[in-house]
Amino acid sequence: MTFKAPDSLSEQIARHLGQMIITGELKAGERIQEMRVAGELNVSRGSVREAYLILERRYLIDILPRKGAVVSAMTPKHVRDVYEVNIVLLTHLARVASQVWKDEDLREFMQVVDDMEGYVRRNQVMDFFVATFQFARMAYRFADNPYLEDMLEDLQPLIRRTYYFAINTSRDEMEVSMKMFRDLMERLIARDAEGAAKTLEAFGRHQCETVLACLKNSSAAA
Amino acid sequence: MTFKAPDSLSEQIARHLGQMIITGELKAGERIQEMRVAGELNVSRGSVREAYLILERRYLIDILPRKGAVVSAMTPKHVRDVYEVNIVLLTHLARVASQVWKDEDLREFMQVVDDMEGYVRRNQVMDFFVATFQFARMAYRFADNPYLEDMLEDLQPLIRRTYYFAINTSRDEMEVSMKMFRDLMERLIARDAEGAAKTLEAFGRHQCETVLACLKNSSAAA
Repeated sequence: MTFKAPDSLSEQIARHLGQMIITGELKAGERIQEMRVAGELNVSRGSVREAYLILERRYLIDILPRKGAVVSAMTPKHVRDVYEVNIVLLTHLARVASQVWKDEDLREFMQVVDDMEGYVRRNQVMDFFVATFQFARMAYRFADNPYLEDMLEDLQPLIRRTYYFAINTSRDEMEVSMKMFRDLMERLIARDAEGAAKTLEAFGRHQCETVLACLKNSSAAA
Repeated sequence: MTFKAPDSLSEQIARHLGQMIITGELKAGERIQEMRVAGELNVSRGSVREAYLILERRYLIDILPRKGAVVSAMTPKHVRDVYEVNIVLLTHLARVASQVWKDEDLREFMQVVDDMEGYVRRNQVMDFFVATFQFARMAYRFADNPYLEDMLEDLQPLIRRTYYFAINTSRDEMEVSMKMFRDLMERLIARDAEGAAKTLEAFGRHQCETVLACLKNSSAAA
């Protein structure tokens, strides 16, 4: 059992606003007014400004001179760019993990893969996507590199935000993702570092394309 | 000519404290007291807290519950870990750059390499190291990925901090670095993506080992 320090007030505010950005309640380009947030949440403007810096670090807002906090844009280029760096960091993690995992690690990872199979069967798109984060987080220990972890954690909310566009993904498309993920698992088990990196890249690119296709449909629908 | 918005007050405070950490004036493990900084710089405690979040993002301090801001540790493991992620991001940049550079880009890069040769001849260790940043920054445009840029920029102050241990590097060691850098340039020009990535990795690892050797000597001397 680990005791974790409670989140600071600014972290709590950041999570609250972050969730609104991820789910699209706050939209790209929208200004978030410091005074209004402070009033609504009954917190100081200083705490809101600190929350902005946390949200900026997580790429969810831009802090602009004289304009203040603005929800970051989410164009196809943004989606491609964020997947590009996420794939670079995750393939590195996969390469390392494929070399250092031990037998006792396997069961835990197999459990997540089983969960993912269930999500695909029941067409639970968001749960499927979120399980891929859980899988990656469990793999952090193999790299044992806090900088790599921080970078991946900072990208997570933005990746999560892109998933919200993909919530209507078809079951068939999920099956394709799942097949790639199973391939990844096989390469990792075979300690095939380059194979694992290549399969993870294919998996990441497929997720990116899925999000892009849905983003296109959602703008067409809007 | 570009007009750049002046740095915010918190950014200015972060730069000031950051520079003191980079040069070792503020040492690993040292507490930075909010009230004292606010008093010395004649700024509000809120601005200092914002500066802390910026410095945390740049990996120069840790913000600990009840303890506040503490200068981050700089052990051999920290050095290895930060070089590991820096190399992962930079090799990606090198791969992309080797594919997309155009003839008109060459001269500017050649100029930096010439500058570096001069620094090695005159044994200007810090200038040599800093020129490698300049080189990387000029290459950002090839990837055209703001997330990648942000991550590399956030790592820069910490890499710079590690260099301060290497200030007494021998001229011979600089020559080895320079030879690797020339190799890198050749691979980039030859559009040899894998060769460029491998050479850059060797260059990064050599810099890391140089820093580690000097860090060992400086702790032995302390």
